[in-house]
Amino acid sequence: MNITDLRSDTVTKPTPGMLQAMFAAQVGDDVYEEDPTINALEQKAAAMFGMEAGLFCPSGTMTNQIAIKAHTEPMTEVICDVTAHIYQYEGGGIMFNSGASVALVHGERGKMTPAQVEAHIRPDNIHYPPTRLVALENTCNKGGGAFYTLEEIAAISEVCKRQGIALHLDGARVFNALVASGEDAVAYGNYFDSISICLSKGLGAPVGSLLLGKKEFVKKSRRIRKVLGGGIRQGGYLAAAGIYALENNIERLAEDHRKAKEIESMLIQADYVEYVLPVQTNIVIFKLNDRYKDVDFVAALAENSIRASSFGPQMVRFVTHLDVSDDMLQHVLQVLHKLNKTHVAI
Amino acid sequence: MNITDLRSDTVTKPTPGMLQAMFAAQVGDDVYEEDPTINALEQKAAAMFGMEAGLFCPSGTMTNQIAIKAHTEPMTEVICDVTAHIYQYEGGGIMFNSGASVALVHGERGKMTPAQVEAHIRPDNIHYPPTRLVALENTCNKGGGAFYTLEEIAAISEVCKRQGIALHLDGARVFNALVASGEDAVAYGNYFDSISICLSKGLGAPVGSLLLGKKEFVKKSRRIRKVLGGGIRQGGYLAAAGIYALENNIERLAEDHRKAKEIESMLIQADYVEYVLPVQTNIVIFKLNDRYKDVDFVAALAENSIRASSFGPQMVRFVTHLDVSDDMLQHVLQVLHKLNKTHVAI
Amino acid sequence: MNITDLRSDTVTKPTPGMLQAMFAAQVGDDVYEEDPTINALEQKAAAMFGMEAGLFCPSGTMTNQIAIKAHTEPMTEVICDVTAHIYQYEGGGIMFNSGASVALVHGERGKMTPAQVEAHIRPDNIHYPPTRLVALENTCNKGGGAFYTLEEIAAISEVCKRQGIALHLDGARVFNALVASGEDAVAYGNYFDSISICLSKGLGAPVGSLLLGKKEFVKKSRRIRKVLGGGIRQGGYLAAAGIYALENNIERLAEDHRKAKEIESMLIQADYVEYVLPVQTNIVIFKLNDRYKDVDFVAALAENSIRASSFGPQMVRFVTHLDVSDDMLQHVLQVLHKLNKTHVAI
Amino acid sequence: MNITDLRSDTVTKPTPGMLQAMFAAQVGDDVYEEDPTINALEQKAAAMFGMEAGLFCPSGTMTNQIAIKAHTEPMTEVICDVTAHIYQYEGGGIMFNSGASVALVHGERGKMTPAQVEAHIRPDNIHYPPTRLVALENTCNKGGGAFYTLEEIAAISEVCKRQGIALHLDGARVFNALVASGEDAVAYGNYFDSISICLSKGLGAPVGSLLLGKKEFVKKSRRIRKVLGGGIRQGGYLAAAGIYALENNIERLAEDHRKAKEIESMLIQADYVEYVLPVQTNIVIFKLNDRYKDVDFVAALAENSIRASSFGPQMVRFVTHLDVSDDMLQHVLQVLHKLNKTHVAI
Repeated sequence: MNITDLRSDTVTKPTPGMLQAMFAAQVGDDVYEEDPTINALEQKAAAMFGMEAGLFCPSGTMTNQIAIKAHTEPMTEVICDVTAHIYQYEGGGIMFNSGASVALVHGERGKMTPAQVEAHIRPDNIHYPPTRLVALENTCNKGGGAFYTLEEIAAISEVCKRQGIALHLDGARVFNALVASGEDAVAYGNYFDSISICLSKGLGAPVGSLLLGKKEFVKKSRRIRKVLGGGIRQGGYLAAAGIYALENNIERLAEDHRKAKEIESMLIQADYVEYVLPVQTNIVIFKLNDRYKDVDFVAALAENSIRASSFGPQMVRFVTHLDVSDDMLQHVLQVLHKLNKTHVAI
Repeated sequence: MNITDLRSDTVTKPTPGMLQAMFAAQVGDDVYEEDPTINALEQKAAAMFGMEAGLFCPSGTMTNQIAIKAHTEPMTEVICDVTAHIYQYEGGGIMFNSGASVALVHGERGKMTPAQVEAHIRPDNIHYPPTRLVALENTCNKGGGAFYTLEEIAAISEVCKRQGIALHLDGARVFNALVASGEDAVAYGNYFDSISICLSKGLGAPVGSLLLGKKEFVKKSRRIRKVLGGGIRQGGYLAAAGIYALENNIERLAEDHRKAKEIESMLIQADYVEYVLPVQTNIVIFKLNDRYKDVDFVAALAENSIRASSFGPQMVRFVTHLDVSDDMLQHVLQVLHKLNKTHVAI
Repeated sequence: MNITDLRSDTVTKPTPGMLQAMFAAQVGDDVYEEDPTINALEQKAAAMFGMEAGLFCPSGTMTNQIAIKAHTEPMTEVICDVTAHIYQYEGGGIMFNSGASVALVHGERGKMTPAQVEAHIRPDNIHYPPTRLVALENTCNKGGGAFYTLEEIAAISEVCKRQGIALHLDGARVFNALVASGEDAVAYGNYFDSISICLSKGLGAPVGSLLLGKKEFVKKSRRIRKVLGGGIRQGGYLAAAGIYALENNIERLAEDHRKAKEIESMLIQADYVEYVLPVQTNIVIFKLNDRYKDVDFVAALAENSIRASSFGPQMVRFVTHLDVSDDMLQHVLQVLHKLNKTHVAI
Repeated sequence: MNITDLRSDTVTKPTPGMLQAMFAAQVGDDVYEEDPTINALEQKAAAMFGMEAGLFCPSGTMTNQIAIKAHTEPMTEVICDVTAHIYQYEGGGIMFNSGASVALVHGERGKMTPAQVEAHIRPDNIHYPPTRLVALENTCNKGGGAFYTLEEIAAISEVCKRQGIALHLDGARVFNALVASGEDAVAYGNYFDSISICLSKGLGAPVGSLLLGKKEFVKKSRRIRKVLGGGIRQGGYLAAAGIYALENNIERLAEDHRKAKEIESMLIQADYVEYVLPVQTNIVIFKLNDRYKDVDFVAALAENSIRASSFGPQMVRFVTHLDVSDDMLQHVLQVLHKLNKTHVAI
């Protein structure tokens, strides 16, 4: 039996159409900025988000880390939610790469309010690192896929503009937010100073993220990318997958969201679940009660050919994506049902 | 009229006895480790805290920053309370000097429990910066002078030892903790891998802190001090003040604590106070109700020749010390009384 | 007319055979270490160089920078030749990524002697950053493709081992050195603590380098790669090109060397050349006399559909590679001849 | 017999007059910028060098390191002579504190020419760290006390201004340069963006250096000093020594220079000396021939109650200063004479 891999939406493999696009790609040496496919992808993504320019990078960690470095200096501070990927899952990169401090907001499901952001801006005092950057994550991974609306983003952007502080978006799953909210990406350019988008999560491309911003910002970022070792040569094969993904794989994220909702419905009724974070996009995070330890539950799933991530004490995360078929979904639902103490066939 | 300066216990000036000791000091070039008075101070302080060796530095920020650097590498993490001086008031130095991340505990008045510490230790996972150091602050400045007992310290030390993580003490006001608890400093050496103590707060010396630890640790720290620019030449004049302070100014801290308690008693009855953090040592932190804005209250004090620190929205901090005489205390109490809406002479 | 691009051997594009191998690759999520093709490439390259393990990275700058970071701590020092790529062309990465100092040797064509290395090792003194790493580059790019023999490497390795200092190889063009010397790569494992090899220079793969070393070293390096943002997902397509390159494109480097020698012969006779660094591999560096300014000479080549790099005042560099055909070589030779003041047809 | 200590001019101890000035000092808390003596010293030194403001720091390493940090960002580059104190003797601080690279000029006795400086400025290219700072040392310690004239400084300053690069002076021994050249310090303000001067070398104060520059620069530097841990409290005692030194101990440096010249005359005739760097100020650096190994020579001096520094293979350094009396000089001359193979009484 095939494995149903719900660990992350990063595990997808290119579809035949995407593979075909990759191997038809025109390539060149991108260190000389001569790879036509990378250039095209950078321009396409920038335009989509209302930005001037883009920079193709090997990972979303790199686009985030470059943006943080470009917006800050050592001895300054970044405000983000305590659950943010940039703080939690990038190996301490904010401090290592940028020498910058963090002010950690305890938001609701990873989302900060404008008032919370404002309360964490440092007054001018020699004892404090000056605040230079606010970073949002949309959707919020650790928040179970919750998303900011444009209105919420605009309100935070207003605080940042008033205070002269840059605003960055970690948009690793921003396409899920856009599909769920029905909003247009182009408006994002009004609010953010930089945006990181990822091609290898829900969009299904094998490798790559883009950092978007003004021309001057991208020029500075290109230099930082070089020093981090992110400058690649004939990367057009990867970029072609990205272009294909932007053209073909956005709307279909609604399918992933629907599947996540179905899983949520099953979990809500399960006798082993304490609570489920209400599903808004393609992430399902739930807490187990004492019937199962998280590692045992994940092991029980594995025995049924389902892979999932333990996500902290008694917490489990499922992520739906391109490679979770309807048949796989039915199988997952059946297994989740079966794991109840007493279950009847559904 | 003389100013009563309650902004901090750092504002004290040497007494005639201390000045005389300074004058009489033997000095030498400490970069060559040839200043006899610095050497004597380092040994005396180390012995007092059950440590092998000491290092004299220009400030407590430097002793803390050196300790953090010596215990960590870039891409690792430090656990401390969110109110800790090392995180809040050292300009982002943890990240700048050490490239290390912080895990911030929300303790009670700046004090972390062993369980909180343990919950913030990172599992072994490529996404996380490995935890390398736990740092306590005793007494806790932002916690209003609350202190850890030896028993509480021992319990946190046990967690650190079991997990192979170093334990540092920011002992900027550790002498206040020792006097308040009646405990012996020498026991500290059993629990901490490094201790920073400050000579220029309650102890009344003009300049200087000491970093204490094992010989190997202090040797490494001496190298870091050099790179930060903390290596001084004929510093024995300052060290002599430190020796005098250790020999003469510890027990008298009880006076400062008594004065802080008297101020607390007055504030509890005041009609402009929302609450006072229960006084344990020489720090009084209280919250104003809406009768005064914090800046206005501090200004009203200033008109009465009293200086104090605004300490966050509606918060005010008083610190008692060597240069607050009994007469000054009476004056402070009268002014605090006078600031009530309707007051009668006391 | 087709452009003959002699700027660098990084400009090559995959051959049909390589593209076919890429297309057929099995892939997986390499952050979970589940990409079978990347795993296979890492093992193959490690075995080839007598090392335990390998790490696939987006660029040679990244493999070098990770190695330097893994071998050093901040406040320590790296010894390399003043012409070294890690010092000259990686954007100051040694200092930025590692906080390490450099001791710069003035070697012969980029090659250091054991005595020079030893003379640059710092004595134990608090004023100096301790020496932690020696880095060789083979072949030496700025040295015009000069190479170290195994015997020369062994002698430097002996100094490093005796002094307890790590030895790294920037092997961006190590395959050129191996083909030119006729030596076996597997012996390298005896001398180096880490080796960076590049797939996208003479070997003709589109993207990627490998860092080779002991298992523990590679584990540490994987963590650093994550923080720099070099962890990719389904990168097997690129790795497949690397495997193909290792299996098919090494021996043919002799062709590139032969072409470089033919260009050298022509340049030696040219009336516009002051000197040519004797060609040993695929790099030709020469100095123009005052008949041409370097930018004018490069422009004259461009008018003849030949691209080359200005390489410092009056210096020009040609690099031969997979995409320089015999016809192109003949064209280059004719143009170089034609640029003489008075020329007769050859 | 008293020791004659020629290891460094840092070993001097305060004279009675200086000590008296120290203990008459008015002090205050300098973190609040309320120490009147520190404030007076900062203003006095700034005015003397034609600068707007000053910052008192514990050491010259700190003033240099702060200046470098304030002028650069990570991933940029500093140009200095390969012998410069900031590169050689500050523990790798340029790279550690600032994350900046170094371009090392091989000047004449530590002095760079304008042409050398210009040749080391990086062109605009993504592979290079942009040049941000040029740093001179005057006098040059490792250059045997050679000094730049104002005319030479002006010529380098012209290059920096034209290229938009800052110019810093490590003036650890700038007073020796000023006394030797007869030039006026105030002119320095026209050429440098920042100046570090040291009080505890030839001037004889126990502790402290000053960083001088524009108001905005000093404000930024004060913040950096805080993070490095260089902010002190009642430091006025040290500052008073500095004021005394500036008022009383500058002209007398001519005495130190005369003594150094007398030593030079003796060494030139000695049968154990290969060469002496021509003495210009208070430093005498000479090379031993094979009659003595440097450590044996230094040991022979020690047996005669003279301390000196071994200064590299076969190199020895003497530094004259305030605490080398005329009697001591005669003793030194006799001992140097006595160490000849065959000597007659002088």
